[in-house]
Amino acid sequence: MTGIITSGEKHLVLVSGRAHPKLAEDVAKNLNIELLPTTAYNFANGEIYVRFNESVRGCDVFVLQSHTSPINEWLMEQLIMVDALKRASAKRITVVSPFYPYSRQDKKHLGREPISARLVADLYKTAGADRLMSVDLHAAQEQGYFDGPVDHLWAMDVLVDYVKTRVSLDEVCVVSPDAGRIRVAEKWAAKLGGCPLAFVHKTRDTTRPNVAVANRVVGDVQGRTCVITDDLIDTGGTIAEAVKVLLASGAKDVLVAATHGVLSGPAPERLSKCGAREVIITDTLPLTDEKKFPQLTVLSIAPLLAKAIREVFDDGSVTSLFDGVA
Amino acid sequence: MTGIITSGEKHLVLVSGRAHPKLAEDVAKNLNIELLPTTAYNFANGEIYVRFNESVRGCDVFVLQSHTSPINEWLMEQLIMVDALKRASAKRITVVSPFYPYSRQDKKHLGREPISARLVADLYKTAGADRLMSVDLHAAQEQGYFDGPVDHLWAMDVLVDYVKTRVSLDEVCVVSPDAGRIRVAEKWAAKLGGCPLAFVHKTRDTTRPNVAVANRVVGDVQGRTCVITDDLIDTGGTIAEAVKVLLASGAKDVLVAATHGVLSGPAPERLSKCGAREVIITDTLPLTDEKKFPQLTVLSIAPLLAKAIREVFDDGSVTSLFDGVA
Amino acid sequence: MTGIITSGEKHLVLVSGRAHPKLAEDVAKNLNIELLPTTAYNFANGEIYVRFNESVRGCDVFVLQSHTSPINEWLMEQLIMVDALKRASAKRITVVSPFYPYSRQDKKHLGREPISARLVADLYKTAGADRLMSVDLHAAQEQGYFDGPVDHLWAMDVLVDYVKTRVSLDEVCVVSPDAGRIRVAEKWAAKLGGCPLAFVHKTRDTTRPNVAVANRVVGDVQGRTCVITDDLIDTGGTIAEAVKVLLASGAKDVLVAATHGVLSGPAPERLSKCGAREVIITDTLPLTDEKKFPQLTVLSIAPLLAKAIREVFDDGSVTSLFDGVA
Amino acid sequence: MTGIITSGEKHLVLVSGRAHPKLAEDVAKNLNIELLPTTAYNFANGEIYVRFNESVRGCDVFVLQSHTSPINEWLMEQLIMVDALKRASAKRITVVSPFYPYSRQDKKHLGREPISARLVADLYKTAGADRLMSVDLHAAQEQGYFDGPVDHLWAMDVLVDYVKTRVSLDEVCVVSPDAGRIRVAEKWAAKLGGCPLAFVHKTRDTTRPNVAVANRVVGDVQGRTCVITDDLIDTGGTIAEAVKVLLASGAKDVLVAATHGVLSGPAPERLSKCGAREVIITDTLPLTDEKKFPQLTVLSIAPLLAKAIREVFDDGSVTSLFDGVA
Amino acid sequence: MTGIITSGEKHLVLVSGRAHPKLAEDVAKNLNIELLPTTAYNFANGEIYVRFNESVRGCDVFVLQSHTSPINEWLMEQLIMVDALKRASAKRITVVSPFYPYSRQDKKHLGREPISARLVADLYKTAGADRLMSVDLHAAQEQGYFDGPVDHLWAMDVLVDYVKTRVSLDEVCVVSPDAGRIRVAEKWAAKLGGCPLAFVHKTRDTTRPNVAVANRVVGDVQGRTCVITDDLIDTGGTIAEAVKVLLASGAKDVLVAATHGVLSGPAPERLSKCGAREVIITDTLPLTDEKKFPQLTVLSIAPLLAKAIREVFDDGSVTSLFDGVA
Amino acid sequence: MTGIITSGEKHLVLVSGRAHPKLAEDVAKNLNIELLPTTAYNFANGEIYVRFNESVRGCDVFVLQSHTSPINEWLMEQLIMVDALKRASAKRITVVSPFYPYSRQDKKHLGREPISARLVADLYKTAGADRLMSVDLHAAQEQGYFDGPVDHLWAMDVLVDYVKTRVSLDEVCVVSPDAGRIRVAEKWAAKLGGCPLAFVHKTRDTTRPNVAVANRVVGDVQGRTCVITDDLIDTGGTIAEAVKVLLASGAKDVLVAATHGVLSGPAPERLSKCGAREVIITDTLPLTDEKKFPQLTVLSIAPLLAKAIREVFDDGSVTSLFDGVA
Repeated sequence: MTGIITSGEKHLVLVSGRAHPKLAEDVAKNLNIELLPTTAYNFANGEIYVRFNESVRGCDVFVLQSHTSPINEWLMEQLIMVDALKRASAKRITVVSPFYPYSRQDKKHLGREPISARLVADLYKTAGADRLMSVDLHAAQEQGYFDGPVDHLWAMDVLVDYVKTRVSLDEVCVVSPDAGRIRVAEKWAAKLGGCPLAFVHKTRDTTRPNVAVANRVVGDVQGRTCVITDDLIDTGGTIAEAVKVLLASGAKDVLVAATHGVLSGPAPERLSKCGAREVIITDTLPLTDEKKFPQLTVLSIAPLLAKAIREVFDDGSVTSLFDGVA
Repeated sequence: MTGIITSGEKHLVLVSGRAHPKLAEDVAKNLNIELLPTTAYNFANGEIYVRFNESVRGCDVFVLQSHTSPINEWLMEQLIMVDALKRASAKRITVVSPFYPYSRQDKKHLGREPISARLVADLYKTAGADRLMSVDLHAAQEQGYFDGPVDHLWAMDVLVDYVKTRVSLDEVCVVSPDAGRIRVAEKWAAKLGGCPLAFVHKTRDTTRPNVAVANRVVGDVQGRTCVITDDLIDTGGTIAEAVKVLLASGAKDVLVAATHGVLSGPAPERLSKCGAREVIITDTLPLTDEKKFPQLTVLSIAPLLAKAIREVFDDGSVTSLFDGVA
Repeated sequence: MTGIITSGEKHLVLVSGRAHPKLAEDVAKNLNIELLPTTAYNFANGEIYVRFNESVRGCDVFVLQSHTSPINEWLMEQLIMVDALKRASAKRITVVSPFYPYSRQDKKHLGREPISARLVADLYKTAGADRLMSVDLHAAQEQGYFDGPVDHLWAMDVLVDYVKTRVSLDEVCVVSPDAGRIRVAEKWAAKLGGCPLAFVHKTRDTTRPNVAVANRVVGDVQGRTCVITDDLIDTGGTIAEAVKVLLASGAKDVLVAATHGVLSGPAPERLSKCGAREVIITDTLPLTDEKKFPQLTVLSIAPLLAKAIREVFDDGSVTSLFDGVA
Repeated sequence: MTGIITSGEKHLVLVSGRAHPKLAEDVAKNLNIELLPTTAYNFANGEIYVRFNESVRGCDVFVLQSHTSPINEWLMEQLIMVDALKRASAKRITVVSPFYPYSRQDKKHLGREPISARLVADLYKTAGADRLMSVDLHAAQEQGYFDGPVDHLWAMDVLVDYVKTRVSLDEVCVVSPDAGRIRVAEKWAAKLGGCPLAFVHKTRDTTRPNVAVANRVVGDVQGRTCVITDDLIDTGGTIAEAVKVLLASGAKDVLVAATHGVLSGPAPERLSKCGAREVIITDTLPLTDEKKFPQLTVLSIAPLLAKAIREVFDDGSVTSLFDGVA
Repeated sequence: MTGIITSGEKHLVLVSGRAHPKLAEDVAKNLNIELLPTTAYNFANGEIYVRFNESVRGCDVFVLQSHTSPINEWLMEQLIMVDALKRASAKRITVVSPFYPYSRQDKKHLGREPISARLVADLYKTAGADRLMSVDLHAAQEQGYFDGPVDHLWAMDVLVDYVKTRVSLDEVCVVSPDAGRIRVAEKWAAKLGGCPLAFVHKTRDTTRPNVAVANRVVGDVQGRTCVITDDLIDTGGTIAEAVKVLLASGAKDVLVAATHGVLSGPAPERLSKCGAREVIITDTLPLTDEKKFPQLTVLSIAPLLAKAIREVFDDGSVTSLFDGVA
Repeated sequence: MTGIITSGEKHLVLVSGRAHPKLAEDVAKNLNIELLPTTAYNFANGEIYVRFNESVRGCDVFVLQSHTSPINEWLMEQLIMVDALKRASAKRITVVSPFYPYSRQDKKHLGREPISARLVADLYKTAGADRLMSVDLHAAQEQGYFDGPVDHLWAMDVLVDYVKTRVSLDEVCVVSPDAGRIRVAEKWAAKLGGCPLAFVHKTRDTTRPNVAVANRVVGDVQGRTCVITDDLIDTGGTIAEAVKVLLASGAKDVLVAATHGVLSGPAPERLSKCGAREVIITDTLPLTDEKKFPQLTVLSIAPLLAKAIREVFDDGSVTSLFDGVA
């Protein structure tokens, strides 16, 4: 046969933006590799420069970025990295965005709004991304925004495994912070051995819909250690109120467990003063000093990301990491 | 200046698939126009033939189809119509699908599932659709599936206006059939003059999550005329159970109001026997005789579709039809 | 070098829609594999659900579907399967449609018609298909409708090999059912050892073009065993008429050989009563009981599909299966 | 309302490549306009330069090119013109290619061939063409190669109207030069008042398929004035042979009528010496001196192109120019 | 004719991001319109929210943004605005970016770098932009990065007209700050009545290429008022050095004229101390207080942008604003 | 696991157009392979036919073409080859165009011009090219025109290595033919051991800009062997003038070194008579007899192309061939 024939090889490479270097190093360590050496800095006027210091030709590259504030900066950096990889002949590019940017702008609440979550998916695609990996999207429908494979990971096991060490299973109770997330709470309850569950209902007192909102606990929390579960904590208002109403309803103790610790503005103060025994998050987003407070526990998401990346690279099954649900 | 200059004109045209001719005629009547004469039939092996009998060159065409069973048949017919319009030089093509097909397959519940709702949006785009109009999508996030403008209409006013004539506003109570749809119920309550609201909670008894599901009413319905609101009624199971539990909880009377009357299989029997005084739907889907039952009321969605189509054609504001929410 | 390096692998997977399970099993058997376990059913309102029960990550997947009636149903099912495969990270997706849907709507005969055969190609592409395999397209130009590689297989050898066992080569004569397919008949004649050929000419009596159509045999069929060849038999009208005129012209015997047995409506009756000794088709389409008749012989297309799939997977040559013609 | 509102206008502009300036001027004259002043020349190394000397912003531009030899040169010039128009903000760009380039490479006859006719359609699209207009495509299926509206014009009426003035209707006979084009011949016969028709059959003597090809006339031409119709005349071999066999079969006289006069290499000599009384073509392609011969008549296609362009611009109906067939 | 026919209208709308409100207001004033009322703010975690407060259906919208620091923030805001306009059925969207972001990253200087200027063009396209308008791109080749019409404006006339009032034409001399921009300087010289020109040559002393760089003036500047012209001033190093060497070479006086006043970091100090009499820029970028210095003059680019926008809207000629050069 | 698993392989194939067969053979020889047997010819009307005589399924194909006059012919041939490869299931297609066609039409100098260099990149992409390889693009920005990886090779080392054998390093001087290419000349000077450099400045006498252009040497060339470097020589006018002015300025001797020898029209005569001792080019373009002249030396570019192709195939680093600059 005319030409040259050689055997094929696959080459996994992990690169990282500058938003959360610790997470990238942890993922690399879990994969037993080094991060690809990369140069990245800002020019005087704020434009970003990126260059990879080793060849990525033919590689299966995973581009990790953490979308913390300044979130637009880090998104652009990731897009520029993807562009550079595409032009450098990477074989396959998977964007790894543990906290998906703009995931809450997923529909038009009013006319003439953007659907930024879809826009972000299109920007990734245009830059050159073939695949997308994320953790606990705000709405599962967003998997459909990217025109290609999406690996949607769940942090629940990471959180549950830790919570099990912090509560007594015979007095725990899982609490959803609003009516819309009860289904997730049910899965938590099952994983905690079939414990009871409850939820906080933001009532506009059912008899007087126009009157100001109040929180009400649905389910019996009396004397129980409550575990509030959510996908993210941003300014902490809803969660702090939920903690208070649970304690007021007789809960013995309250823990909060959420995947993404956005912790904007007043969040540290609100959460440290709301009465929760412990607030547990993962490190999908970096934690600056001013976001820290005594009750905060941060779990590493790196092992999960590393496992998923390895499955993707090996053509294994990411679904299998979650009992078929992903 | 070289060439020929003439003044511009805009030409609105409405065409319809064969799934629900009555609805198309009603929309045309509301627009004071005729449907564009169209030839459509199936070949012996089931392939569909379509042809438009008048020129559509330069026209602003609205392609109405109703996605009832056999739903794949009607979807393909609509795609073929769009293809024919594109090749016939229509200027702009708006797909009008009052009941969006596959709207419930909007995420992967398990690994290796499709996201058919996104697929449908892409098929419309590929065939040649520039815009999409639909009524009460199952998940608002699906607006983001189509790569172009989506006019998302709400049937609530149509339903509310009728319900107002059927209940006494001082004893009415709006009921959401599950916790996830409370926000819509709140809007209903506001439109019904600030009436109370309640919801049916599918409990996996909060204290025993593994025990069989039971329905529980949250909110006080005693002696009240309850109006259950939902986006669609398919096999009717959830709704019929909700009616029963409301009556068991002391409701004086129950009405059901939903936008899309899918009414598959056992629905007519279940709904006619569940105890509801009246089941109110719109005619986004056609009603065959075997789907009819005594308590059923069907309201016309045609005036709303016609108004929206006219706003789109006139570069008016569809948002204004819904107080900014669309 | 930074990262992980492993050796590459290729993984062939065959999945099938529900239209013609027997054919899929036969192809799998010819490949010495099992079909990938797949879940597929219809929801109450007719929407299709599909899920693959094993990982397809990195696989070279062939998606077989047979486009029999209800043809739009089976086409949508195949599109949904492709979507699910794409989102599940299949490496390459080849649509295998032995009978290409809408292949006869390949041009605008009149203004404002669709070109559905091109539309179908675009729908496949949009859903995520990388490649297309089909047998005996109605017009070879349709290879150009798909934006990617098309493996166009010929069933002629399958049919010829069987016919050789059923006729005496020294009295056989190949007949084209109309003037437009003579070139195919010539290839048949060559493969049958250089036998004579003839064709049936639908005359609008050449001297009176407006008078009703009549069939006329061009070529000498007196005392010969005629083999009529065609790409498909739909309602059987043309073929049955051809058989009759051949017999009336002195043919000793008539066999019919066609690739696709659509056999719509009156076809079984027409063909069984037209006087043909045997009607030979392949099983690119399933055969329901009401389509069967005594003279019908069905040959298996599975070995050919299996061979072509294996060549595609092995980066061999499909062309070589047909002496360069594909 | 915020902003500025003005009334809309439409502006038709016709530009032309350098291949056939006479045709462009004729079309312009028929439209009562001037061609847009354009600069076009070749650089020393053969690269083409194009510039439009007037603004085309917002215009409905028709880009006429004639694809004669050197055909690749003229195709590239047309693509470059389309690119310049797109970047100059033309509103709509219609490629007018009376003789579609590469129309005969419309399928893979052998493995590993291109489908150049599809490629050309894609190149037009990529350069920026919104629409395509052509005359008598070699295969009607090619309408499906362009992803957008195609205006497929028929030159038949132009040719028939002239032929009517050259023959006596009571002794004329329409002849198809091969079996595959009989359907067109039938339309001719109808337009010539229902005259008889015949065709030339390239026999590989039906009883001896391997013996050299011979031409045979099917139909009675004795004493008749035959009109051979075809879509194009390239090297003229087939047509010249047909003329000879018709005369040998007793035809009184033979005329040849074809849309596209490619007239490559030996064509003028062959046609002038074959015995035809007159060879009638249109001027879709330019006629150099060495292509002329005494029996050649060239009809103007400009009025038809001008009429079609005007209908397109006015959102009229091109179909109506051909009784619905286009 | 079936349907509704109305006369067409065009509606110009101007919207603006938050980076440089003064410029937007000035452009609006020059157009005699109001900016479209728009809501825009950042969420707690830095995500941007945008909404247009009036209908933009069918409008010809110009989306002005100024790409100053934080440049990635303002770029994302503009992309989100374009997305919202697309989904709100704007008819045509023109991105107006007077200072094109990332225009200096227009090639790979080293392997594995991005080409961010092309990426930005693709991001605009993906978000929904149909057209692009910018002023003095860093490399004219970047016009080719956007897949659509680009209006490339020149600020030279704005700057020249002012400079004419500040210098005596008989002693002026135009200076290019490096050898690569001489052609622009020549145009300046012509516009200043055919004055002499010079340029500063960064020599790596031609006889000793490895020795440190020095600046050298080519051309005679003795006793002349020099006008240095450039496209942008970023950190001001090159310009300040050029001023010094000109003065050292006997220049009587030095003015600096540049389109884009990026003025990063040390620029104000360098420029105010380098000895230049006046530094003239336009307001394509906003001027914060710390960027101001006594010798700085800022000219308004708004009239030029307004004129170009109006020409685009009216289908006039932007080229005509620049004597054919745009 | 269901299905078939085999080990992966990679297969390099080199195919060539007809423009410059010698170059293709040389590249193949350097790779120790044969060119893939290919059939290519023109039809009577100038249309091109191409077919590959061996299977290319799954291959990594490099499509070499040299864009000499007739340049449009060879560009179309290359596009058609790419189309055939795509449809024949090649795995990856790299267009190798040592002299990129239309590279000088890279911006709009005037309104309503094309940007043909971008158009060519889009045509390659549309035909099916995944990657692009070229040598010394006229403007490096053109790397950004292709939507995918571009391997931009530098011929400098090829030229420098030869020049070193022809000059005495202690009396050599590198000369840029105009001010815009000084940076390249500096690299040459460094590679020639840090020799002096100069450039020819086309003065429009700095004191009288409207007076006719004259050439002036900047830098000291007295008694030195000058080496003029450029990317291409087209009609040779600029270069011949530069040689003359260098000799007139006291240069001892002049060599010319350029990558692309376009050598149109008067170039051979001008260059042979201008006084240059030697004119050195590479064979990116073929050399017809009428382009030859005594002082011309042609170096082979084949080893560089072969090395780069091998690096691409092996997922090595092309950048490493140029010390990181590519």
